[in-house]
Amino acid sequence: MDLRQEVRAFARTHLLDGPADLATRTAAWHAAGLANWWLPVEHGGRGLSLRDGVDVVDELAYADAGFAFSSLVGVIGSTLVSLYGDDRLRADVLGDLGREGGFFATAVTERDVGSELDRLRTTAVPKGDTVVVTGEKLFSTNADSARYLLVVARHEAGADDHPHVAVVVPRDADGVVVSEPWRTTGLTGSPVHRVTLADCAVPAGNVLDGHGLRLLEVGLNASRVLIAATAVGMARRVRDLCLDFAAGRRLRDGVLGKHPLFADKMAQVEIEIETMRSQCRTAADDFDAVRADPDAARRFARRGALKSALVAKVFCGQAGWRVAGTGSEVFGGLGYTDEVPIGALVRDLRHVSLVEGGEDVLRDVVYRRFTAPRVRRA
Amino acid sequence: MDLRQEVRAFARTHLLDGPADLATRTAAWHAAGLANWWLPVEHGGRGLSLRDGVDVVDELAYADAGFAFSSLVGVIGSTLVSLYGDDRLRADVLGDLGREGGFFATAVTERDVGSELDRLRTTAVPKGDTVVVTGEKLFSTNADSARYLLVVARHEAGADDHPHVAVVVPRDADGVVVSEPWRTTGLTGSPVHRVTLADCAVPAGNVLDGHGLRLLEVGLNASRVLIAATAVGMARRVRDLCLDFAAGRRLRDGVLGKHPLFADKMAQVEIEIETMRSQCRTAADDFDAVRADPDAARRFARRGALKSALVAKVFCGQAGWRVAGTGSEVFGGLGYTDEVPIGALVRDLRHVSLVEGGEDVLRDVVYRRFTAPRVRRA
Amino acid sequence: MDLRQEVRAFARTHLLDGPADLATRTAAWHAAGLANWWLPVEHGGRGLSLRDGVDVVDELAYADAGFAFSSLVGVIGSTLVSLYGDDRLRADVLGDLGREGGFFATAVTERDVGSELDRLRTTAVPKGDTVVVTGEKLFSTNADSARYLLVVARHEAGADDHPHVAVVVPRDADGVVVSEPWRTTGLTGSPVHRVTLADCAVPAGNVLDGHGLRLLEVGLNASRVLIAATAVGMARRVRDLCLDFAAGRRLRDGVLGKHPLFADKMAQVEIEIETMRSQCRTAADDFDAVRADPDAARRFARRGALKSALVAKVFCGQAGWRVAGTGSEVFGGLGYTDEVPIGALVRDLRHVSLVEGGEDVLRDVVYRRFTAPRVRRA
Amino acid sequence: MDLRQEVRAFARTHLLDGPADLATRTAAWHAAGLANWWLPVEHGGRGLSLRDGVDVVDELAYADAGFAFSSLVGVIGSTLVSLYGDDRLRADVLGDLGREGGFFATAVTERDVGSELDRLRTTAVPKGDTVVVTGEKLFSTNADSARYLLVVARHEAGADDHPHVAVVVPRDADGVVVSEPWRTTGLTGSPVHRVTLADCAVPAGNVLDGHGLRLLEVGLNASRVLIAATAVGMARRVRDLCLDFAAGRRLRDGVLGKHPLFADKMAQVEIEIETMRSQCRTAADDFDAVRADPDAARRFARRGALKSALVAKVFCGQAGWRVAGTGSEVFGGLGYTDEVPIGALVRDLRHVSLVEGGEDVLRDVVYRRFTAPRVRRA
Repeated sequence: MDLRQEVRAFARTHLLDGPADLATRTAAWHAAGLANWWLPVEHGGRGLSLRDGVDVVDELAYADAGFAFSSLVGVIGSTLVSLYGDDRLRADVLGDLGREGGFFATAVTERDVGSELDRLRTTAVPKGDTVVVTGEKLFSTNADSARYLLVVARHEAGADDHPHVAVVVPRDADGVVVSEPWRTTGLTGSPVHRVTLADCAVPAGNVLDGHGLRLLEVGLNASRVLIAATAVGMARRVRDLCLDFAAGRRLRDGVLGKHPLFADKMAQVEIEIETMRSQCRTAADDFDAVRADPDAARRFARRGALKSALVAKVFCGQAGWRVAGTGSEVFGGLGYTDEVPIGALVRDLRHVSLVEGGEDVLRDVVYRRFTAPRVRRA
Repeated sequence: MDLRQEVRAFARTHLLDGPADLATRTAAWHAAGLANWWLPVEHGGRGLSLRDGVDVVDELAYADAGFAFSSLVGVIGSTLVSLYGDDRLRADVLGDLGREGGFFATAVTERDVGSELDRLRTTAVPKGDTVVVTGEKLFSTNADSARYLLVVARHEAGADDHPHVAVVVPRDADGVVVSEPWRTTGLTGSPVHRVTLADCAVPAGNVLDGHGLRLLEVGLNASRVLIAATAVGMARRVRDLCLDFAAGRRLRDGVLGKHPLFADKMAQVEIEIETMRSQCRTAADDFDAVRADPDAARRFARRGALKSALVAKVFCGQAGWRVAGTGSEVFGGLGYTDEVPIGALVRDLRHVSLVEGGEDVLRDVVYRRFTAPRVRRA
Repeated sequence: MDLRQEVRAFARTHLLDGPADLATRTAAWHAAGLANWWLPVEHGGRGLSLRDGVDVVDELAYADAGFAFSSLVGVIGSTLVSLYGDDRLRADVLGDLGREGGFFATAVTERDVGSELDRLRTTAVPKGDTVVVTGEKLFSTNADSARYLLVVARHEAGADDHPHVAVVVPRDADGVVVSEPWRTTGLTGSPVHRVTLADCAVPAGNVLDGHGLRLLEVGLNASRVLIAATAVGMARRVRDLCLDFAAGRRLRDGVLGKHPLFADKMAQVEIEIETMRSQCRTAADDFDAVRADPDAARRFARRGALKSALVAKVFCGQAGWRVAGTGSEVFGGLGYTDEVPIGALVRDLRHVSLVEGGEDVLRDVVYRRFTAPRVRRA
Repeated sequence: MDLRQEVRAFARTHLLDGPADLATRTAAWHAAGLANWWLPVEHGGRGLSLRDGVDVVDELAYADAGFAFSSLVGVIGSTLVSLYGDDRLRADVLGDLGREGGFFATAVTERDVGSELDRLRTTAVPKGDTVVVTGEKLFSTNADSARYLLVVARHEAGADDHPHVAVVVPRDADGVVVSEPWRTTGLTGSPVHRVTLADCAVPAGNVLDGHGLRLLEVGLNASRVLIAATAVGMARRVRDLCLDFAAGRRLRDGVLGKHPLFADKMAQVEIEIETMRSQCRTAADDFDAVRADPDAARRFARRGALKSALVAKVFCGQAGWRVAGTGSEVFGGLGYTDEVPIGALVRDLRHVSLVEGGEDVLRDVVYRRFTAPRVRRA
C-alpha cells in the first residue's frame, strides 16, 4: 500500500466516518505512525519529504481540511528546531514529538500587527540560564492541546535591525494561558486560540540560532506549501461531490452529469486541480532540494522565503476559491442547506487565502524579492 | 424624511441594535407601516413601486440580509393575487396582509425537480367548490409564520401543455404541516422550511387565473430584482466595514485606508455597487412601466420573465460575490473569526446567486428568449 | 423613424458598406444632420441629450468603433465652449461647427505626463489681446482634419494651485503643426496625431472661464460616457457575429447555435451588454440632469468628475474586454485570420479601457472623491 | 553555456536584433544546431527532451512568438514518424530534417470541420505501391517552405470506426499547391497557408502505422505543451517590458516601478509565469516518461491525449491572456500605438488559446477522459 492509499484509508475510517473530536483523531493519526510525518526517523518519525507531505495533506484535506490543517502546522516549529536548535533541544523536542505524537503550535501574530511582524512586542528577556517570555499572541492553532509553542519575541541579544528571536516554549510552562478557541468561519476541526505568556521562563537553549523573523520565513516555506495542498484535496472533494450529485440528477432527457455545461465546468475544475498540484509539487521539490543539502540551515537562512512556495500559496488560494464558487453553483439552493457538505467546503476553502499571509502580503514579498531585482527574475 | 432615511432609521434601531428574532422584527416593521410595502393603499399598504422597493431592500440588507429577504419574498404572492386573483381573493388576502402585516410565502420547488418546474408533482384537484392540494414542497421561506402560501400544483383544468396552476393556501388550512427550518449556510434570520400539504381543501376561487408557471415568472420578476438589491446593500456594508477597519489599521508609516492598493480595491467595490444599483433600478423601472399599464395582467402574462430582471439577478450575484471575496481579503485571518461580521456577509452574499434560479438556469432563459431570436435582441 | 433607426440606417449605408475614408464618412454624417449631434439647435445642431448620444454612439460603434470615436470626441470641446466660453466664442465656434460639421479635437496629454495632468508644460502667455500658446501634445484624435483644438496649458493668470487654463486654438492658426497619425493597435478609422504649437497667437477670449483641469473633468464626463457606449455597440456586434456564425456551424447532430455551452456564453454576453447599457444610461441621465440646470456651469465646475461617468468608463472597459475574449473563443483559429472581423473587434474593444484615463487612474479618482469621504458614499 | 543561455543568445542576435524574414532566421537556427531540436542524435538532431524543449520555446517566444511557433510545430510530424513510421521513412524523413533543418508542417483542419475531426474529407486512396491523397486543408503553418506535410486523410484500409490515417507528403510532391498566407491577428512571423492536394501520389510506406486521429493526439501532446510554453516566454517579456517602462516613469514623488499597485500587478504576473512554467514542465515530464519507454509507441497509442498536456495548453492560454490584459493596462494609451511592442504581444498571446484546440474542445476531452470516469480521476 503506497502512502496516498495509506492516508486515504485512514481518512475514510477516522475522518469521514469516525468521531469528529480532535483528540481522538490525533491519537489515531499517531497510532497510524503518521503524526508529524516529517520528523526524522532517528527521532521516531517517518522522515517524509515535503513532496510526500503534499500528498499526505491532499488526502487528509479531501476528508477534512480542519484536521489536515491541525496536522500540518507543526511542520514550522519542527523544521526550525531541526535546522536551528542545538543538539539538546533537537533531541528533547523532536524525540518527544516522535514518541508522543503531539502538536507543535506556532504563536506569532499579535493584535494590530498584521503583516508587519517587525512590530511584534512580545519580549524574551535573558535571566540567568533562562529567557523569560512575556506577551500576548493571537491565532495560534492547536495551542491548547500542543506540547510546544514556537514563539517569536524581541530579544536584547537580537541585532538592532533584527531584534526578534524564535523560542520554543513548552505548553505546560508556568505562565502560559490559552484562551477558548475562536468561533471561525470554517475549518471547525482546527481550534485557534489566543495565548498569553506571563513571565514564562524557559531554558536559554530554547532560543533558536538566528534572526527570528528570518527563521519564521524558512519554516513558513514548508507550511505554506502544505496549506496550498489542502486546496488540492478540498477541490478534489468538491469535484467528486458534484459528479456524484450530477450522476443522479435528472435534467431534461438525461442527467446533469452528461450535460455539456456541467462537463465544461467540471473540466475547468480538473484544470485547477492539476495546476494547483503541479505548483505544490514544484514548490515542495524546491524545498526538499535545499533541505537535502548538508548546509541546508545556512542556505535556507540566506534565501528566506522561496518563490515557488509563495506562488503555491497564493495560486492555490485563488484557484481553490474559483472551485468553491463553481461547486456551490452546481448544488444551487440545496447547497445552501446542510444537506450537502458543499457549504462547509466553500468556507474551508476561503481559509487558504487568508492564513499565514494574505495575497497582498505575499505578492509584496514576491515583487520585492523576485520580480523587481532583474538578476532574480526567472 | 425620505424613504431611504426612514428605512435606515428602522434598520439601525431594530436590525443592527435590536433583538434578532424574526417575530419581533416583523412586528416592528409592520408598526413602522412598511410590511409588504408594495401593497396598494386601498388595501392598507404603502403602494410603493418596485423602484422604491429596490431602495427599501438595499437599506434593509445593509443591516441584515436575512430580514431583507424574509421581508421581500411576499412580493411574489401579493403581486400575483393583485393581478390574477378575483375581487374576493384580492380583498381578503391583500386586505388581511395590509391590516396584519404578515408573510405571504411561496411554496414551489420539490425534491429532484430543480429548475425543471414542469415536473412539479403536487396536485390541485377540484372537489365541489374547493380544490384539494396535496404534495411536498422544499425551501419555502417564512412558511411557518406566514399567513398564506402560494403553491404551484398540477390541475386537471390546466391545458395539456400548461398543466400547472398557482393556488393561494392559507397557512392555517387543515393539512398544512411545516417542518423545522433547515440549517443554512447564511441568511440566518430567514427561516426556510419544508411544507407538506395533505388534502388541503381551499376555495376554488383561490386558484389564480392563468398558467401557473407563467404567473410564477411574472411574480419572480419582482422578487428577483429585490433579491438583486440585497446584494447592493450587502456590498455597501462590506465597503463600509472595510473602510472603518482600514482607517484604524496601522500600515507602514500610515494607515491601511491611505494605501493605494486598498484604495484601488475599494474603488472597484464602489464600481460594482454603482453598476449593480443601476441595473436594479433599470429593471425595476421596466417592471413598474408594465405594472402601470391598465392591461398589466395580460401584458405581464404575455411577456413572462423580463430580461432586465433576469440580468439584475445574475449580475448582482456575480458582482456581489466579487465584493465578498475582496472584503474577506481585507480582513485577512481576523475576518475568519467572529470578531468581525465579514464572514457572515460572505455567506449571505452567496445566497444571491443560488436562490430563485441559479445562474445557469437564468442564462438559459436569457438565451432562448432574448438572444437567439434576432427580433428580440436589443 | 426614431433616432436609433436613423443612425442604424446611416451606419449600414456609410460605414458597413461604404468607403472607409474618414473625410467621406464625416461629410455624409454632416449631410445626415448628425455631426456634433449635441450642438444646441440655435447653433444649427440637433440638440440631443447625452442620453440620446449613448444610443447614437452605440449604433455607430456597432458598425465601426473608429468612426464612432472620431465622431464623439468633439463633445468635450463643444460642451466646454458652451458652458465656459463667452458669447462671441460660443457663437463663432459652435455656429461654425453647426454649419460646417467639422471636428473639435482635444490636445491635452504630453510626453511623460501620464495621468498627472498638473505637470503639463505647454504654456499660454498673454500678449496684448491675444494669448500665445506653445508646447507639444500627444494623442490628439482628429487633430489634422479638425477645425478647432481644445488645448490645456499653463497660464500666468492661473491660480497658484490651479495654473492651467483651457484654450480654443483654431486648427489653421499659425504655428500649429500636426504629425502623421500613429499606427495604432485598433480603431484604424480614427487617426491620432502629435500636435506641435509654436507661438500660436489666439484671441484672449479663446481662454475658457475657469481652472483648465477642472473644466477638462467636466468635459470628460460626457466623452467618457460616450466612450463607454462604444463598448455596448461593439459587444452587440460581437454577439451578432457569433450568433450568425453559430447558426451555420455544424456541431455533432446539430448546430453550434443550439449547443448549451454556446448558449451559456452568449447569454453572459447579453448580460454584459445589458449592464453596460444600464450604466451608460444612468450616467448620461446624471449628466443631463446637471446640464439642464440654469446654473449648470457652476454646478459642473463644483462637482468635476461625476461618479456614474467614471464608473461607466471603467465598467464598460472591463465588461467589453470580457466580451472580446468570449467572441474570439467562439471563432477559434478562424477568428485569428482576417476572414472574420472578430480580431479587429477585440483590438477595438481594448481601446475603451486605455483611452481618457486608464482603470487605475479612474479608480483612484473614485476612491478619493466618492469612497473615502463618508458623506459622499452612496 | 547551458541550453537556455544558448537559445537566449541566439534570440538576441537573430530575433530581437536581426532581420525578420523567416528564411534567414530558420537558416541561422539550423546553423546553430537547434532546428528540430527534438530529432534523435542518430538522425543528426540534438535529441532534446520535451522538458528541454519547454525551455527552448520559452526563450524563443520571449523574443518572437511567431518564430517560436514556426520552430515547434514540426514536433508533431517528427514525433509520429519516429514512433509510427517504418525504418525507411524514419531514415529518410528524420535524416533529411536533421541534415537540412527544414520544416515539417501539419495539414489537418478542413473548412467547416472545426473540432470534429472524424468529419475530415480528404482521402488517401491506395494505388499500386502508392497512396493518392486528395483534399483541401486549412491553417497549415510553414506549409509553403516546409519539406514535409503530415496529412490526415480517410483511407479505405482504415477501420470502420477509425477511417483516418496519417500520411507524410513531401512538399514538392506533384499536386501540392500552397496558397498565400492568411493575414492573421498576430504571430506575424509564422505564415499560415491553405494547402490543396490534387491526386498527390506518395509511397504507401508514407502512411503511418495506426489510427490517424489517435496518432494525431499523440503528436499534439508534444506541440500543445510547447505552445503552452510560448505563453511563458511572452508573459516574461510583458513583465520585463512593464518593469523597464515603470523604472523610468515618473509618478507622484517617485517612479511607477515603486508604486504598490504596480508592484501588486507585477507580482501577480510573476505568479502566472511561475504556475504556467510548473505546469508546462510537469506535462513535459509526463510525456518524456512515456517516450523513454521501449514500448512508447504502443503506450502512447493507448493513452492518446495526456491530461497534463491538455491542462498546460488550456491553463497557459488563460493565464497568458490575463498577463496580456495587465500588460496593456500598464502602458495605457501609449501601448495602443506602435511605439511599444505590448500591442503585438497581446495579439500574439491570444493565439495560445485558439490554436490546436480551443478551450471548450480541450475541456470536453478532459471531462470525458479524465473527470467523468471515476477510475481515471486523480
